[in-house]
Amino acid sequence: MLTSYSKILETAVNEIAKLPGIGRRTALRLALHLVNAETVEVETLAHALTELKSSLKICKYCFAISDHDVCEICANPKRNPNIICVVQDIRDMIAVENTNQYSGVYHVLGGVISPVDGIGPGQLKLQELFHRIENHPVEEVILALPSTAEGDTTNFYIYKHCAEKAPKISLLARGVGVGEELEYINEVTLGRSLITRISFESQYGSVL
Amino acid sequence: MLTSYSKILETAVNEIAKLPGIGRRTALRLALHLVNAETVEVETLAHALTELKSSLKICKYCFAISDHDVCEICANPKRNPNIICVVQDIRDMIAVENTNQYSGVYHVLGGVISPVDGIGPGQLKLQELFHRIENHPVEEVILALPSTAEGDTTNFYIYKHCAEKAPKISLLARGVGVGEELEYINEVTLGRSLITRISFESQYGSVL
Repeated sequence: MLTSYSKILETAVNEIAKLPGIGRRTALRLALHLVNAETVEVETLAHALTELKSSLKICKYCFAISDHDVCEICANPKRNPNIICVVQDIRDMIAVENTNQYSGVYHVLGGVISPVDGIGPGQLKLQELFHRIENHPVEEVILALPSTAEGDTTNFYIYKHCAEKAPKISLLARGVGVGEELEYINEVTLGRSLITRISFESQYGSVL
Repeated sequence: MLTSYSKILETAVNEIAKLPGIGRRTALRLALHLVNAETVEVETLAHALTELKSSLKICKYCFAISDHDVCEICANPKRNPNIICVVQDIRDMIAVENTNQYSGVYHVLGGVISPVDGIGPGQLKLQELFHRIENHPVEEVILALPSTAEGDTTNFYIYKHCAEKAPKISLLARGVGVGEELEYINEVTLGRSLITRISFESQYGSVL
């Protein structure tokens, strides 16, 4: 895409196109939108982006990104600090938060063990998790990692190190997603959800 | 999407989500990418965006955005200043440039006449176009506006005002797009391309 007739425009397009999932055509569309936008809007955007690097901190307990040294969830007295939900990253933490079904705290690993990608236990916040569990009264550790080979490996690794210290280690339920058509579900999921079938009443309550 | 646990993150997500075609989920993904990116990368991006407002100019001849008072195309002595290609916006100008088939100059209208959207001739750079044609030896005006009702209206408006002053006013050819399957082409286009059919030789040359 030839935008070289304006160096300023081309620089902006190049920088925007470095973002994940943004191609040069979209980058051009966004850049031209900003050209026509109000100056204050563009400055607010640019300021908000630099703030992400200059002002965001990492929570010293759960390693979530945070405005302060301790994140709002860890600092919230209404959250139960004795239930720890282990997630791979902040996006998964936000996904769990959005369910409005969880009142414990989190531990953000920063990924899952993946030898193929060169990610070993040492690159994740695993020692910090074990340290947290050893030095703190923990009721339950909920492993909310992806249901992949890497997620399973990480689940086993955590289980091996924590089984004696944590009274309860649980996993997210596996099965048919709400609203899913059976024909589109992969056979492993469907097979497992048949084996680990649940009682009618546990899903719908006693309707009779 | 609950990102309110970090105001800095939420501000960034809100600002990014104001961009056209970017939803909150994508905005979150981009913001978290920047959190993990190098500081210099984020600062370069933010700087490039503010430059779009603070440093870009409008070419005083063709009204394209430009690094200088006169854009590189208007200032280029190799371009023919007597052929003017009228486009609705800079994206269409870039699209024409990318064909590498055009060596004249442009005139960026800033839109097309659209009473439904409240855009009348006065809001476009039409007087500037007529002024340009009157005060400058023009060989040809190429109308490269969208093939829509609004584009047609604008084409007629320009034709009415310029027919006496410009020796030649032309339109982009209408017809079957290269690589297009006939069954997916709308019937108006297909009907017109049948009526305005071209000679075999004009497309393929004399192959015998």
